[in-house]
Amino acid sequence: MSGETESAAAAASDTSEAIMEATYSALCKHGYADLTMQNIADESDKSKASLHYHFDTKEELLLAFLDHLYESFTAEFATTEGAHAVDRLITFVDEVLCKSDVEGAEEFQTALMEIKAQGPYVETYREELERIDAFVRDRVREIVADGIEEGLVRDDVDPDDTAAFVATLVDGVNTRRVAIGETDGSTRNIFVAYVRENLVAPGADVAVDGETLGAVSEGED
Amino acid sequence: MSGETESAAAAASDTSEAIMEATYSALCKHGYADLTMQNIADESDKSKASLHYHFDTKEELLLAFLDHLYESFTAEFATTEGAHAVDRLITFVDEVLCKSDVEGAEEFQTALMEIKAQGPYVETYREELERIDAFVRDRVREIVADGIEEGLVRDDVDPDDTAAFVATLVDGVNTRRVAIGETDGSTRNIFVAYVRENLVAPGADVAVDGETLGAVSEGED
Repeated sequence: MSGETESAAAAASDTSEAIMEATYSALCKHGYADLTMQNIADESDKSKASLHYHFDTKEELLLAFLDHLYESFTAEFATTEGAHAVDRLITFVDEVLCKSDVEGAEEFQTALMEIKAQGPYVETYREELERIDAFVRDRVREIVADGIEEGLVRDDVDPDDTAAFVATLVDGVNTRRVAIGETDGSTRNIFVAYVRENLVAPGADVAVDGETLGAVSEGED
Repeated sequence: MSGETESAAAAASDTSEAIMEATYSALCKHGYADLTMQNIADESDKSKASLHYHFDTKEELLLAFLDHLYESFTAEFATTEGAHAVDRLITFVDEVLCKSDVEGAEEFQTALMEIKAQGPYVETYREELERIDAFVRDRVREIVADGIEEGLVRDDVDPDDTAAFVATLVDGVNTRRVAIGETDGSTRNIFVAYVRENLVAPGADVAVDGETLGAVSEGED
């Protein structure tokens, strides 16, 4: 790449990043239904005309935003720290759920819920939402399969079922947080209990949060 | 009550019922964000002016609608058929989830999701949503407590935890149906597995859908 092309590309990337950040702020402030190109322009140093140069419609911009969300979400959660697969599974769920503790997160979850309610009407939004969901399920599936490999997860556990279960719980927690303001963390306890009772192999020596999750070995009395 | 008062009360109740039905139809057709008093009037034999005679604002009408939803939901699910508590628990979850098979249900769930996204902004909506949620959790709590009493559910199961779990799953399923069109019923399998592994008492003779859910009794080999 020539120096000129390189800096043009860098400038384009900066512009794109700035528009995405402005979209995030505008969504938190106005929600989806009341969002306008002017709201987004107001959150950036761009004019409304300059936004329209990049995106014809609000839907087009939102689609680019959901794509950007997918990219940053998948980059952030591509790997999970943990001593073993069961630990990584719980950490992954904690991390995905705790996204909501960062500033503006409640407002953003609320706007995202409005966008989800567009799913039946805007096929392109639904496709982006499906990609994010498929990523969450893939990560859970991989971690559970690793756990079976490591002998810590029962070999009759279906990684697909666990993935569907985790994705449904995460959606449920996010919905409840927005709709009724529930943030009591009760779901984490339920999830840990589920892991202990339904996933951990009998006799496996697995500790999470200092608590041993392994089922009592059969010989023990 | 005199005959005249009685028929006036009956007429008022008919009017109210007609407005609620028109609101349901208008929500299915237009969603919440685009809903107007005119849309609702168009679905009934009332004029917009006559709706305004009963309700000053769209928010006031929607609040009455959510109250009506609570009343019909709680009347419909006040009792659950079943041979025993575990059977009733699974039937209750099936029934709550299968609400979505009736005509217009997908459109209604979508509008309801928009209303849930208003939770952080409209406190009165949130209160109505909380009442419906509290009812679901109460029913689950009662059924699980009955199951412990009957000796079919393990006595170390916390009815509150189970109630929170079921409510979260139901919200997750409804969100996924709207956002990504998922209707594969995978959650029912997960739920039945959860009941089998986490709730049913060891040795209890419990059959659901012809499948025995009771954990293998300790003496069996």
